[in-house]
Amino acid sequence: MIINPDQLNTNKNDISIHKNQFDHLASSLSKQGIEVDQIVAKLANFQVAIPSWALGAGGTRFGRFSYYGEPASLEQKLEDIGIIHALTKSAGAVSLHIPWDIPEDYKAIKELANSLDIKFDAVNSNTFQDQPNAKESYKFGSLSNTSKTVRDQAIAHNREVIDIGKELGSKSITVWLADGSSFPGQNNFQTALSHTQNSLKEIYNVLPDDWKLFIEYKPYEPYFYSTVIQDWGTSFLLANECGEKAYTLVDLGHHLPNTNIEQIVATLMWKGKLGGFHFNDSKYGDDDITVGSIKPYALFLIFNELVYGMNNNPQNPELSWMIDASHNLKDPLEDLIQSLEAIQVIYAKALLVDQHQLKEAQKNNDVTLCQEILQNAYLTDVRPLVKQARLQQHGAINPLKAYRSLLVREQLVKERGKHTVATGL
Amino acid sequence: MIINPDQLNTNKNDISIHKNQFDHLASSLSKQGIEVDQIVAKLANFQVAIPSWALGAGGTRFGRFSYYGEPASLEQKLEDIGIIHALTKSAGAVSLHIPWDIPEDYKAIKELANSLDIKFDAVNSNTFQDQPNAKESYKFGSLSNTSKTVRDQAIAHNREVIDIGKELGSKSITVWLADGSSFPGQNNFQTALSHTQNSLKEIYNVLPDDWKLFIEYKPYEPYFYSTVIQDWGTSFLLANECGEKAYTLVDLGHHLPNTNIEQIVATLMWKGKLGGFHFNDSKYGDDDITVGSIKPYALFLIFNELVYGMNNNPQNPELSWMIDASHNLKDPLEDLIQSLEAIQVIYAKALLVDQHQLKEAQKNNDVTLCQEILQNAYLTDVRPLVKQARLQQHGAINPLKAYRSLLVREQLVKERGKHTVATGL
Amino acid sequence: MIINPDQLNTNKNDISIHKNQFDHLASSLSKQGIEVDQIVAKLANFQVAIPSWALGAGGTRFGRFSYYGEPASLEQKLEDIGIIHALTKSAGAVSLHIPWDIPEDYKAIKELANSLDIKFDAVNSNTFQDQPNAKESYKFGSLSNTSKTVRDQAIAHNREVIDIGKELGSKSITVWLADGSSFPGQNNFQTALSHTQNSLKEIYNVLPDDWKLFIEYKPYEPYFYSTVIQDWGTSFLLANECGEKAYTLVDLGHHLPNTNIEQIVATLMWKGKLGGFHFNDSKYGDDDITVGSIKPYALFLIFNELVYGMNNNPQNPELSWMIDASHNLKDPLEDLIQSLEAIQVIYAKALLVDQHQLKEAQKNNDVTLCQEILQNAYLTDVRPLVKQARLQQHGAINPLKAYRSLLVREQLVKERGKHTVATGL
Amino acid sequence: MIINPDQLNTNKNDISIHKNQFDHLASSLSKQGIEVDQIVAKLANFQVAIPSWALGAGGTRFGRFSYYGEPASLEQKLEDIGIIHALTKSAGAVSLHIPWDIPEDYKAIKELANSLDIKFDAVNSNTFQDQPNAKESYKFGSLSNTSKTVRDQAIAHNREVIDIGKELGSKSITVWLADGSSFPGQNNFQTALSHTQNSLKEIYNVLPDDWKLFIEYKPYEPYFYSTVIQDWGTSFLLANECGEKAYTLVDLGHHLPNTNIEQIVATLMWKGKLGGFHFNDSKYGDDDITVGSIKPYALFLIFNELVYGMNNNPQNPELSWMIDASHNLKDPLEDLIQSLEAIQVIYAKALLVDQHQLKEAQKNNDVTLCQEILQNAYLTDVRPLVKQARLQQHGAINPLKAYRSLLVREQLVKERGKHTVATGL
Repeated sequence: MIINPDQLNTNKNDISIHKNQFDHLASSLSKQGIEVDQIVAKLANFQVAIPSWALGAGGTRFGRFSYYGEPASLEQKLEDIGIIHALTKSAGAVSLHIPWDIPEDYKAIKELANSLDIKFDAVNSNTFQDQPNAKESYKFGSLSNTSKTVRDQAIAHNREVIDIGKELGSKSITVWLADGSSFPGQNNFQTALSHTQNSLKEIYNVLPDDWKLFIEYKPYEPYFYSTVIQDWGTSFLLANECGEKAYTLVDLGHHLPNTNIEQIVATLMWKGKLGGFHFNDSKYGDDDITVGSIKPYALFLIFNELVYGMNNNPQNPELSWMIDASHNLKDPLEDLIQSLEAIQVIYAKALLVDQHQLKEAQKNNDVTLCQEILQNAYLTDVRPLVKQARLQQHGAINPLKAYRSLLVREQLVKERGKHTVATGL
Repeated sequence: MIINPDQLNTNKNDISIHKNQFDHLASSLSKQGIEVDQIVAKLANFQVAIPSWALGAGGTRFGRFSYYGEPASLEQKLEDIGIIHALTKSAGAVSLHIPWDIPEDYKAIKELANSLDIKFDAVNSNTFQDQPNAKESYKFGSLSNTSKTVRDQAIAHNREVIDIGKELGSKSITVWLADGSSFPGQNNFQTALSHTQNSLKEIYNVLPDDWKLFIEYKPYEPYFYSTVIQDWGTSFLLANECGEKAYTLVDLGHHLPNTNIEQIVATLMWKGKLGGFHFNDSKYGDDDITVGSIKPYALFLIFNELVYGMNNNPQNPELSWMIDASHNLKDPLEDLIQSLEAIQVIYAKALLVDQHQLKEAQKNNDVTLCQEILQNAYLTDVRPLVKQARLQQHGAINPLKAYRSLLVREQLVKERGKHTVATGL
Repeated sequence: MIINPDQLNTNKNDISIHKNQFDHLASSLSKQGIEVDQIVAKLANFQVAIPSWALGAGGTRFGRFSYYGEPASLEQKLEDIGIIHALTKSAGAVSLHIPWDIPEDYKAIKELANSLDIKFDAVNSNTFQDQPNAKESYKFGSLSNTSKTVRDQAIAHNREVIDIGKELGSKSITVWLADGSSFPGQNNFQTALSHTQNSLKEIYNVLPDDWKLFIEYKPYEPYFYSTVIQDWGTSFLLANECGEKAYTLVDLGHHLPNTNIEQIVATLMWKGKLGGFHFNDSKYGDDDITVGSIKPYALFLIFNELVYGMNNNPQNPELSWMIDASHNLKDPLEDLIQSLEAIQVIYAKALLVDQHQLKEAQKNNDVTLCQEILQNAYLTDVRPLVKQARLQQHGAINPLKAYRSLLVREQLVKERGKHTVATGL
Repeated sequence: MIINPDQLNTNKNDISIHKNQFDHLASSLSKQGIEVDQIVAKLANFQVAIPSWALGAGGTRFGRFSYYGEPASLEQKLEDIGIIHALTKSAGAVSLHIPWDIPEDYKAIKELANSLDIKFDAVNSNTFQDQPNAKESYKFGSLSNTSKTVRDQAIAHNREVIDIGKELGSKSITVWLADGSSFPGQNNFQTALSHTQNSLKEIYNVLPDDWKLFIEYKPYEPYFYSTVIQDWGTSFLLANECGEKAYTLVDLGHHLPNTNIEQIVATLMWKGKLGGFHFNDSKYGDDDITVGSIKPYALFLIFNELVYGMNNNPQNPELSWMIDASHNLKDPLEDLIQSLEAIQVIYAKALLVDQHQLKEAQKNNDVTLCQEILQNAYLTDVRPLVKQARLQQHGAINPLKAYRSLLVREQLVKERGKHTVATGL
């Protein structure tokens, strides 16, 4: 199923209300000296990658409730992303997970992606699960394994992922290393970290010059006592050891309770070492629920640092953005639409922060005013700006409404059958 | 210093912008079927008590940086509350902490409060500090102490607080029992809880018929291993043992990391046992910082339950609302103005939730729509509603702006001197 | 495979060292006035149920690495428990999970269990997964579902579980209600709790007079925003509503970070409402790893309260004990042997606490001494007591050594084949 | 008051029991191939610094309950340390906090310390409180302040602290930088970190060649939203920027909930960047209670890494050890005696870990055995080893018993009076 702009009938009904709201907001913001056009343009340019495994229903260790009409092939996954991109105009990239989604016909896949205006963002390796017919098991680790044979298999896999990415036009690889231990004593921390450093260097050694290596961190899970790359400090240390094409990747859910993530983001950008960013939200652990559904203000504070860094840190590269959430109870496509909306809304709010006035207030230690400035941006209802950005690109004013109105899920079930199951988590 | 409505010159400048914003919002909300007048009326009626100790700068165990012009007497504290009430029209109550603020002349204090439109909300006892000349020490507990003599002193103090409250027209007493232990083994949990239950009953026995007893809970601090009333379950148990005039009081900061506080609120209101609510915010522990400054969406979800309960739970009494925050770095009055603004803004957003539509979506397990309904209310910029409520009552459209414009702090310093120190924390 | 006492050849080698260690410890403890025989007798009597699903390898949402020779039938599961009971003499009970382990031939199963000296402890219902051919789905809840049809199915299932338990001689049912929500707004908290209360009453109504109903609680997972029975307070409230045969069940892993669990245990026993206790350990969330492997001192403090309650709270019934852990990386039987050892060691330490001296120190507020008393018991190496208790019952002095020496796993693989997969998580 | 070895009458009563216990244990350990003498020698060599502020009672933000006979001068503080060192033989160092404890007569102080066998460990600066007559306030930060004047004052203070340390023979300075913010927006993270880096470099520039600079980190408190040096990663980054004499200092209480601290220790030692270690314990936040009183097994796991690092990481310097706890409810000297006992007990257990066998088990992925090896060491009652180490040095077999038997506190009260108050927290 492919959505064309002229199918977006809901826009016809929504346009007049939107225009009224947008004009009112734009006028109000302009009076405050804000360049509304520039903000809308930035929103329009902001594209977030969808991971290829996120189009099906996720589960928990207690089980999984499937959804209907899940995509059964890489082609269908691209098609799904095409649908939400047509509606939201902000999902113009896919992040492939290997070996779940190795293309069979590269040329055809690239043409399909191209026709849907979808780019190939970072490719992802997977050494946290055993593949059927794999010679070695990752049960006790991959890049950090005590066995050289296992490490070599994991290194070779990552190199293969880079090769696949090269074929598709990706320019980066994300290594999420699940390696760790579930019991005290199981791992020698220094040995495991040393092996990991060496393994990453071997991967880094074949990285093309115009590529980036993203090193993700996570404090726990799937292992329950330790993770080899447990925090940003460890990732940063490893990235520095690898070289200047290696960067830290921040995933929102991969932090201990109460972590000040925005400060981590600021520190990494200051050092020019923030490479990528994964969106999701959580209340308890790495819950992987819809970004913005639990702690939207924390996300705003993070975006405030991201915007600051994008404006002030030329030493830091352009970031790779990806949604990294699991969709247990909702239609995965609806969940992604809500995720994209949340990201754009928060980004827009962060763009409203008066950075000049803030710096002055900080200098004067006017704490009350600092808080006012952030709250003023945050409390502004920026949805008209986001809608305007979509409208300019011929997307839907209200993507979720359009999605339901077009009976997309019903159509997918009709095309694919009810009980398909997507590969992935 | 007393502020009269005709001093609010800032309103003259702000009125036209406000009118434009309010009319636009009111029109937009009306189209969605929302009764704007009713919401504004509810906002106008919502009054939050200011604790008598909150007008001075608070500190941490590492020290305290004083503020200028702090109130040195109960009269000056009321005066301070009068100022913020005149500006915000939402601080029409004071919550006295005894023995910090025992009136010397009840009649004069009542007249002063009356002239400032300030009511006497819950009175608070203090058995977590030793008073000079006290016979017994609370170092090892008060209502739960192993010594009957100490328990009796603490009971007598609480009864005296009730007597003071009766003189002033209060109708409730809040017991925050700091009692606990800092080391495993220090306390016998069962004995401590049993003593506490008996002590509370002795206080309850002298409670006037039209009074309420609020039992606060807290997981830790000032003790570091256990608190006798550690959670809502313990408070609820004790309230049930005391009788129907005893209720649980929820303080936002008194919870373990990640606690779902809104669910606790819902459960207590369902059982008719939520008596009071204390506002503040925190990122790590019981940080007691400005409400809404860290987790405004969590506060919104709590208010969503409070609004639901106020509409659907006749078994639950009207709630006592109080700000329970410490003001370390900001001007305490500015901090309170920001607190009141945050509370009203979030309350207004909660009032926008379409409860009927939500119930339908819940019934249909339409999780996506449930989230949309909450987000739609939350994302609406409701500040014009809050301003309108203030304006109707002759308060300031922008209280903080008015506070600064009127040079209130400068005036207070002039009147009181720079280095006064308020009693309290 | 069945282990007979005369196969325990390792005992022959271990007996002299053990005798030396035991005599030394017994002499030392006797001089402190401790009745060693009584402690050994209490250890010998202490039996912990093994859940029928715990004999196979568990997994995480990221996948599962199977173990070899897993039991493929209920008979084989009982056989596994028989093996560890023969070695440890402390696993003399099984806790069945329905529908995973519905007996086909009740008489045969009872005879088998009897021959292995295994009793049937609490039976467990499962409404957190959909069974093939089930009419209704529990995706959006079971006992709390908005649909009466779904609730009725879940109630009927629980009643069926009671019927199965009656056939086997169980005297209790454990309800772990996974119901909750993953997004704010998804559930109406009051409605969900009200439905749950009514559903539990309907189950309670068919509970035989000599049975107990255990109500488990958990703050999150499998749902990520709320759980209907989120804490002990909610469970306690529901148990009180149901009646005097209803009790709260405490699972170690089901708490928010930093919770003082020992105090919860003390409160519940004081009120006569603690019915059961589930053993595991965790560092981050509900990790379900081997009990005692992360926080043994916390377990000691809990056992200190359990011992106190067993001695001082006749109002509380005998407790149901169960291991509720998942075995990801270790041989499940080895993990259970380590679990049982850890439980007995900690129980023995708690039995050494001088309760009389402790009460005196508490009365005198001698905090230093209180800590000394606990630490003195905790630091004592009690393993000789635990070994003595096993030896008296013809178990293995060193069960793990015996297990490996007898090549149990190798034998099970030979009998069952390598790639069997146990039912369950 | 000074304690001489011949006053330790309690030893005479305790010696025969101790000898019996020690011989039994030594014999048992020798059979396992453990060199008991070497372990006792290592325990005897292990010395922990006492901070000069830790001899008085600490408090919380809710108040402070004083203790009797607190030391009123630096001389009396050294005297106190002398007492516990005479008893425990493990407190042979003091860590001065400036400006609380600036010596008036350096020569006299050095002679006194020398006579008590006390060395001067790291000196500590204090820029988290304002001193009377200070020109600039640290309310909004010190080394990170937006004002150069304030930063310069803080740098000058640190340089002065180094000068004081040089006079006394210290070889290191610890910088605990409390700087941070209590509200989002208050600080510009990048600016604050950049200022801090520059300020630290200016301090580092005057550091003598044989000195070390320790950079402490802490996630929160006294500020409630952010700390400039929030975690080990930030400290490590700053230490690397400063140079090879700069190191990270780990304080046990300065971590977010559930942090795997032992892994941080291992990583830092591997990189040769762990400089110092502060002992305390906590259940909720930075509770600063007696080390070993809450999570002794976590401390054991940390010590396991420290022992491993001391044996395998020549790239890492000798560590500075300090007790960093607050004494709210106990006699501070008793609390320190319990702290030292706990540290030595855990260190002894860590020394028992069979590192060779552990490495083998790790290589074989024998997770069960890895856990057995750690548990076997941990469960051993090593108190006889610790007592033997003290006895060899003419300390007390049972220091706490000796302390009480010698009526030390009563004597101090007699000498100093009841209501002295020690400087410090």
